[in-house]
Amino acid sequence: MARTGVFVTLEGIDGCGKSTQASLLVDALRAAGHEVVALREPGGTPISEKIRALLLDPANAEMAPECELLLYEASRAQLVRQVIQPALERGAVVVCDRFFDSTYGYQYGGRGLSEQLVKTCNELGSCGVVPARTIVFDLAPECALQRATKGGADRIEAEGLAFQQRIREAYLRLAAQEPQRVHLVDAVGTPEEVFARLADALRDLFGTLEGGEA
Amino acid sequence: MARTGVFVTLEGIDGCGKSTQASLLVDALRAAGHEVVALREPGGTPISEKIRALLLDPANAEMAPECELLLYEASRAQLVRQVIQPALERGAVVVCDRFFDSTYGYQYGGRGLSEQLVKTCNELGSCGVVPARTIVFDLAPECALQRATKGGADRIEAEGLAFQQRIREAYLRLAAQEPQRVHLVDAVGTPEEVFARLADALRDLFGTLEGGEA
Repeated sequence: MARTGVFVTLEGIDGCGKSTQASLLVDALRAAGHEVVALREPGGTPISEKIRALLLDPANAEMAPECELLLYEASRAQLVRQVIQPALERGAVVVCDRFFDSTYGYQYGGRGLSEQLVKTCNELGSCGVVPARTIVFDLAPECALQRATKGGADRIEAEGLAFQQRIREAYLRLAAQEPQRVHLVDAVGTPEEVFARLADALRDLFGTLEGGEA
Repeated sequence: MARTGVFVTLEGIDGCGKSTQASLLVDALRAAGHEVVALREPGGTPISEKIRALLLDPANAEMAPECELLLYEASRAQLVRQVIQPALERGAVVVCDRFFDSTYGYQYGGRGLSEQLVKTCNELGSCGVVPARTIVFDLAPECALQRATKGGADRIEAEGLAFQQRIREAYLRLAAQEPQRVHLVDAVGTPEEVFARLADALRDLFGTLEGGEA
């Protein structure tokens, strides 16, 4: 089946401003007349949300890293088959706040699982669906910590700045490996300043996008 | 770490008598003085049981085949890391009623997912742990249906004999591919008759095992 839609994913360390930008992007794309499906991983289908609950439940602290990785991929496979593929096939723009590059960043970069293992799992979980463009909002973990809202700051502090730094480095590595797909956007500045850079990084796909209020 | 234990898995189509034989085998091994860890897949750890509940919940009927496959593997990875590997490392015998060959039988043979996909997932979910011996209790699906208890018969009838036949063929294919590991045991006859064949197929690992009452 021909896929006529456009699949865009947004990535970055905790506190990079990604979710604010996702919201601005969805608004701008809708204002430009696109059908937009806005998603956030893990989750997005009833089954994926149940898997998300398993992943986030503190009672499951004894979870093995391989189990965690496979649960993320299972949740993703359901989202791809049930939502992302059908949306792309009918020509929608799909904007996903985190996708398989987060698994690369967090499980390979952060937790230190083997790069090949994570890449193989990502191929399986994504059912072979690859974003047309992935934006990595790049920011030093120290800056993310300074400006993160309370919840985000807690999480960064709990995992530690070194953990976030390893994730950032994994994202930079990806951008170097796949420069056509993965674009870095400097996440320093106001939401409007960052959005202008984001719109620029998507201009070849959508033309000029006008940002609204953050 | 040296693994000194022995890992044995039991396989076969629904109604082949596998669970009865698992129970006889565990008793016989204990009578022979072994520490035995008896397991059944999917399940066997708190996290694996939660994943099992997701897999078996009829409310999740819209589950994509790839999601189902990855959930089985996630449940397995947790069981391997939390129970099977530690047991083998302390020298126990681990007897598991179904393991990754069931995924091969049901997801590749039964549901028709790609053989390579299933084998790759099996490597991931098993964290590289391979049984020393796998017994396939071989039986024509028609015979399994005739003698299955009510629950088993319902399941065979729901999926259809052709489905069970494809699973049987996948098991036969495995036995041909890996004759050292995968041994076929004719599952026709009384539990005592079948157990005598099972004990024979394990003689090189455990010496002579005496069967009790089924």
